[in-house]
Amino acid sequence: MATRDNGSGEPETPISTPMTTPMSTRSLKWDEAAGALERPLLRQRGTNTTSQIAVVGANSCPIESLDYEVVENEVYNQDWRSRGKLQVFQYQALKWVLALFVGLVVGLVGFFNNIAVENIAGFKLLLTSNLMLQNRYISAFVVYMGCNVVLAAAAAALCAYIAPAAAGSGIPEVKAYLNGIDAHSILAPSTLFVKIFGSILGVSAGFVLGKEGPMVHTGACVASMLGQGGSRKYGLTWNWIRYFKNDLDRRDLITCGAAAGVAAAFRAPVGGVLFALEEVTSWWRSALLWRTFSTTAVVAMVLRGLIDYCRSGNCGLFGKGGLIMFDLGSRLPTYTTTDLAAVALLGILGGLLGALYNYLVDRILRVYGLLNEKGSRCKIVLTVAISVITSCCFFGLSWLAPCVPCPADLAGKCPSIGRSGNFKKFQCPDGHYNALASLFLNTNDDAIRNLFSGGTDTEFGVSTLLTFFTTVYSLGLLTYGVAVPSGLFIPVILSGASFGRLVGTLLGSVSGLDPGLFALLGAAAFLGGTMRMTVSVCVILLELTNNLLLLPLIMLVLLIAKTVADCFNKGVYEQIVRMKGLPYLEAHPEPCMRSLVAGDVVSGPLITFSSVERVGNVVNTLRRNGHNGFPVMEEPPFSQAPELCGLVLRSHLLVLLQGRIFTRDRVKTGAAEVFRTLAPFDFAKAGSGKGLKVDDLDLTEEEMAMYVDLHPITNRSPYTVVENMSLAKAAMLFRSLGLRHMCVVPRTQGRWPVVGILTRHDFMPQYIRDLFPNVLPH
Amino acid sequence: MATRDNGSGEPETPISTPMTTPMSTRSLKWDEAAGALERPLLRQRGTNTTSQIAVVGANSCPIESLDYEVVENEVYNQDWRSRGKLQVFQYQALKWVLALFVGLVVGLVGFFNNIAVENIAGFKLLLTSNLMLQNRYISAFVVYMGCNVVLAAAAAALCAYIAPAAAGSGIPEVKAYLNGIDAHSILAPSTLFVKIFGSILGVSAGFVLGKEGPMVHTGACVASMLGQGGSRKYGLTWNWIRYFKNDLDRRDLITCGAAAGVAAAFRAPVGGVLFALEEVTSWWRSALLWRTFSTTAVVAMVLRGLIDYCRSGNCGLFGKGGLIMFDLGSRLPTYTTTDLAAVALLGILGGLLGALYNYLVDRILRVYGLLNEKGSRCKIVLTVAISVITSCCFFGLSWLAPCVPCPADLAGKCPSIGRSGNFKKFQCPDGHYNALASLFLNTNDDAIRNLFSGGTDTEFGVSTLLTFFTTVYSLGLLTYGVAVPSGLFIPVILSGASFGRLVGTLLGSVSGLDPGLFALLGAAAFLGGTMRMTVSVCVILLELTNNLLLLPLIMLVLLIAKTVADCFNKGVYEQIVRMKGLPYLEAHPEPCMRSLVAGDVVSGPLITFSSVERVGNVVNTLRRNGHNGFPVMEEPPFSQAPELCGLVLRSHLLVLLQGRIFTRDRVKTGAAEVFRTLAPFDFAKAGSGKGLKVDDLDLTEEEMAMYVDLHPITNRSPYTVVENMSLAKAAMLFRSLGLRHMCVVPRTQGRWPVVGILTRHDFMPQYIRDLFPNVLPH
Repeated sequence: MATRDNGSGEPETPISTPMTTPMSTRSLKWDEAAGALERPLLRQRGTNTTSQIAVVGANSCPIESLDYEVVENEVYNQDWRSRGKLQVFQYQALKWVLALFVGLVVGLVGFFNNIAVENIAGFKLLLTSNLMLQNRYISAFVVYMGCNVVLAAAAAALCAYIAPAAAGSGIPEVKAYLNGIDAHSILAPSTLFVKIFGSILGVSAGFVLGKEGPMVHTGACVASMLGQGGSRKYGLTWNWIRYFKNDLDRRDLITCGAAAGVAAAFRAPVGGVLFALEEVTSWWRSALLWRTFSTTAVVAMVLRGLIDYCRSGNCGLFGKGGLIMFDLGSRLPTYTTTDLAAVALLGILGGLLGALYNYLVDRILRVYGLLNEKGSRCKIVLTVAISVITSCCFFGLSWLAPCVPCPADLAGKCPSIGRSGNFKKFQCPDGHYNALASLFLNTNDDAIRNLFSGGTDTEFGVSTLLTFFTTVYSLGLLTYGVAVPSGLFIPVILSGASFGRLVGTLLGSVSGLDPGLFALLGAAAFLGGTMRMTVSVCVILLELTNNLLLLPLIMLVLLIAKTVADCFNKGVYEQIVRMKGLPYLEAHPEPCMRSLVAGDVVSGPLITFSSVERVGNVVNTLRRNGHNGFPVMEEPPFSQAPELCGLVLRSHLLVLLQGRIFTRDRVKTGAAEVFRTLAPFDFAKAGSGKGLKVDDLDLTEEEMAMYVDLHPITNRSPYTVVENMSLAKAAMLFRSLGLRHMCVVPRTQGRWPVVGILTRHDFMPQYIRDLFPNVLPH
Repeated sequence: MATRDNGSGEPETPISTPMTTPMSTRSLKWDEAAGALERPLLRQRGTNTTSQIAVVGANSCPIESLDYEVVENEVYNQDWRSRGKLQVFQYQALKWVLALFVGLVVGLVGFFNNIAVENIAGFKLLLTSNLMLQNRYISAFVVYMGCNVVLAAAAAALCAYIAPAAAGSGIPEVKAYLNGIDAHSILAPSTLFVKIFGSILGVSAGFVLGKEGPMVHTGACVASMLGQGGSRKYGLTWNWIRYFKNDLDRRDLITCGAAAGVAAAFRAPVGGVLFALEEVTSWWRSALLWRTFSTTAVVAMVLRGLIDYCRSGNCGLFGKGGLIMFDLGSRLPTYTTTDLAAVALLGILGGLLGALYNYLVDRILRVYGLLNEKGSRCKIVLTVAISVITSCCFFGLSWLAPCVPCPADLAGKCPSIGRSGNFKKFQCPDGHYNALASLFLNTNDDAIRNLFSGGTDTEFGVSTLLTFFTTVYSLGLLTYGVAVPSGLFIPVILSGASFGRLVGTLLGSVSGLDPGLFALLGAAAFLGGTMRMTVSVCVILLELTNNLLLLPLIMLVLLIAKTVADCFNKGVYEQIVRMKGLPYLEAHPEPCMRSLVAGDVVSGPLITFSSVERVGNVVNTLRRNGHNGFPVMEEPPFSQAPELCGLVLRSHLLVLLQGRIFTRDRVKTGAAEVFRTLAPFDFAKAGSGKGLKVDDLDLTEEEMAMYVDLHPITNRSPYTVVENMSLAKAAMLFRSLGLRHMCVVPRTQGRWPVVGILTRHDFMPQYIRDLFPNVLPH
């Protein structure tokens, strides 16, 4: 083992000395940390006091980088060569089986979620409605609020005590995972459990939140669990999946899972694929597109089958509903230039309000972060408080709203009684309806359906829509960040639809478009303004509403909204990723990184191993620092001069040490010796946080004095850059290939053959800014 | 300049000696060739005699690789640093303006194409129909065939004499371009011209071919022309576009153009984006998704506006038509398990017939390649022959078909008279119609509409559909490859729809689905079986038919068809790319490439320049070989030992030499000296085949003896790999970053600091197979 400064001209003799240098800033880096080491990145950001705060539970957990590089060491090569055609076919086939299976499970879970919500929330609304009919208004309010508070408290308790990582949308975490950041327990089985049941309880509690984000997270968790071969902790394991125990295959499967989540939530299979592609993943290839597509196809078929099954009334209050959630049929919009201008205006306003939404979400999340850090009880109290506020607003505002006489020429029922319906009776006399109650005292899905509904131009007046919009917009902001699984889609669609309908109603006769269509366009504008997605939102809205004729208008409004909002801030998910301090690698390096070279950001001292190293040195090094990858040097007598042999991973080192493949003399043993004790599968990547730890090793003094041959586990082809490579180009390489480590080699000869290692951390603008304050302006 | 074998231990003294080594295999490589050098890749493939043949004109032209790497030399850096905020904003804004402008132009061109085809073909059919009504059957046939032959001959003449590159679909060429292969004149203005008018003539001539592929090519050509700042040859130039003169921006714009082409052809904006993403491009990023989306949004709005304009009858025979081409409305398919089984069967058969189609296309193209090589006249004769066969089949088979009495309960007109319509009268008496004529003697679009039509279960009998399917399937195969711009979508959709409807009719009462829906599913199955696209076909079909309820079935049939067909061969476009000998880089390197290292495929001798080099040496080297990139060595006195300074491009060298920035002594001059004579824009990449040639230089003997400082134009950050890097991983790097050159550096010290250069050629399986017959099995 050798510890050296960068750029020292002469190679040290590879005599094994225990490392005595103090822990450098480098060895403290979170990215390399396997355990409880601090993360200076977050500490460095501490100049801004609030930026230290991250949402529920994210900050307290270690983060690990993922490695999408194929570690081509002898073990891998031997394993790969020994696989017969059948095994390769099995592997390929299994990929597909797993992807389809993910679709099946996510489809079932999504539908279960749907049925549960419809039944719980439906029962609650039915109860309230019945009490209202009996004029027992106070009891109705108490029952309504009581149900909400109990459901909210249950959801928050699940979240706070079992899986804090399940709070929030989950899309930012999945996005970060697919960028290469594995935050602790983000895909754990407990998170999955809480995500499913917390989401059901949260949505049923009448919060202004959606089940879409949580469904994406659920899909990713399901995929992760299946790809990992079940969960050992819960006794659900199978071993035939062992070939998938690597980051690359796991990532692909999780992408399928995320797509399946959207497909199940919106019943939008194509939209799911596009959402995964546009918003969630950082890498993509054509084969994955197809696999994701098959997953969502399975979801669509499962949903279709179950919906058919439920039509016969087997699913309780879940009865109607088709594959299209908000069918706008083929309402033909013939639009004029004035309409286009109105739509453009809607786009601009949507963009502005969307950007404002993102800004406020960020502020509120920071405050909530402070509150949530005070403990689980505080989380529950906060959640209950928001629930009380929501209930009071919904019931109180409806109560204060005037009763409107039913329109005379209506085909449907008015006033409608029961859990859903477009013209709610609430406290009104016969022949009248309460417009606000039609929106507030319905499930969110029904409220959206009412807003989108056509031929009901006069149903919702300006004041109704304004009240509803303001309430939903504010409550949406207040709700995201409490300790329940909460999606952002529904609040944004609700605000957008009410805003759009408001604009449509205000414009009145100026525009010939139906207010229902304006509501749809408003929802598109808000989605464009907050989430900044284009193609996927477009397709999801098409699949939600089944109105293809609106496509040009939806595209127009999305483009305008996104363009306007992009002038102010980033998309909401990206913003949350940043706020959580997750080291997300952007697709494009900051342009100022062109002024730096790779060697500039490498910090010493570098720790390397000799290709045949003393066991004691390896163990001590592993114990004393948290690095995850170590360059291996080929040194005399194995080569004429020191040269870079490759890169060895901590996890592989631990397995090799555990296998005790040691020799008394400093000689090569080779891969055959390794395979006498270990199988290739022993080197497969363990689940998050489940691998061997250095403290698990129990080596004798005698063993510590022996040698271990690192050749069989050394990745002989690590990606390298020359030290004077532009940092921007190095970043491109690092991100494009999904690397975890990149070796920096010297430009001039006669120096130690490796200058340092670049990791994700070294490409973070914040880190570079701290190193070179003059190069990268804030 | 230094010429050396790989791995020589001692660096040569950098004395300038003219290169005396004979042209090595390496210097003959097509990839490096700037001009008329031969392409050994194709010659090496000559073991299989037919594989030398490529389709119309592709083989006779030089191919150049594209370079998506940012050449970070001093000129670039200086230029970049000197740009103010306003200029950066202008650049960003211009990207968008260009993308939107591409949408506008492609939308207009697409609509013009549509109107022209409808009018020409409509006029032809109207004439024939009128003659038939007057019982002048022979005149009708003569007029019909005469029109077809004249149109076909005109299209073939355009193609053969003006732009041979315009023949065929164009999608394979665009796909290859976006993979980094610039085949000669594939995006030239003349190609654009012929593509537009040849396509109009070809479609009007009644061939079994579509305008969709050509529209993609047209879109790409338009984008290329706009991105290049017009065409100097045709006097249409503007200079403000100079920042876009690089491969990266051009590629992005061409992606937008390809998407716009599909959007215009199918009136499917979202489908266009997905097609570009799934089938055409090799690289993708999220920002591009959005830009492509805006382009297709503009196309949709342009089309929408023009269709509205045409509704008032201003466009001749183009009258009806909405944004949805084959509106299936909301025919609700309630399907049972039997239906699912029927659909699965359709998928399997579609996959089999699709794979067969691809196989036969390949065979036929090879034969046509031989014929077409005999000259332009031969091309025209072949085209006319196919036109005669098509006319005879269409008219003759319709003539032989029996007359069927009109259904009694029909809402529409029967028999219909005129250019289109579902129940063609043809030679039948009143009250009867000719089913085959309804399919054959219509435009292809109308035939598809008739096949998709619902509520007409008994219109087309089994024999009608079988005849039509067989004819269209065979003629589709025979037509692709003649010298007219010909898309594959329409033949495939026609065959698929007739086949689907045939299966639906045969199954009759077994399945409850409408035969029109079966036709749609059949089309999906064939598209999946030949083109192997999934998501994009799905969305295109949705946008074509406006029936979202069919989505799960379409997904199912696509998945099955693709899976079945993938067992036999590759997608049709990929196959054509291969057959044309275009060096397409696959997303995944062949697994056997893991057994080789980068150093294995590098072939010597390597030609390098010294960082300050004698002018005569540079000129002679450029003249004597066709390499496009040269490693530059920093040598004493500029460094202590030779080291790799970077990589210099032929085009930059020529500009520098043309600028005559020479010194009498061997000294550095620096970038400032360069900027005294040259502007950064002088180094921008010229259009395909338009850059400086070495023969354009006119240097005196005295100048030849002077020195030129290469530092300002040397890319200091070329991507490098160590010689023992696994070839598979090097290929991943090469493809992921879209490189043209990759330097291979030695692993051990004390050797010449660069071992060789890898180019696209070195990653071609065929080349590797020839080098190492035992490693890569055929």
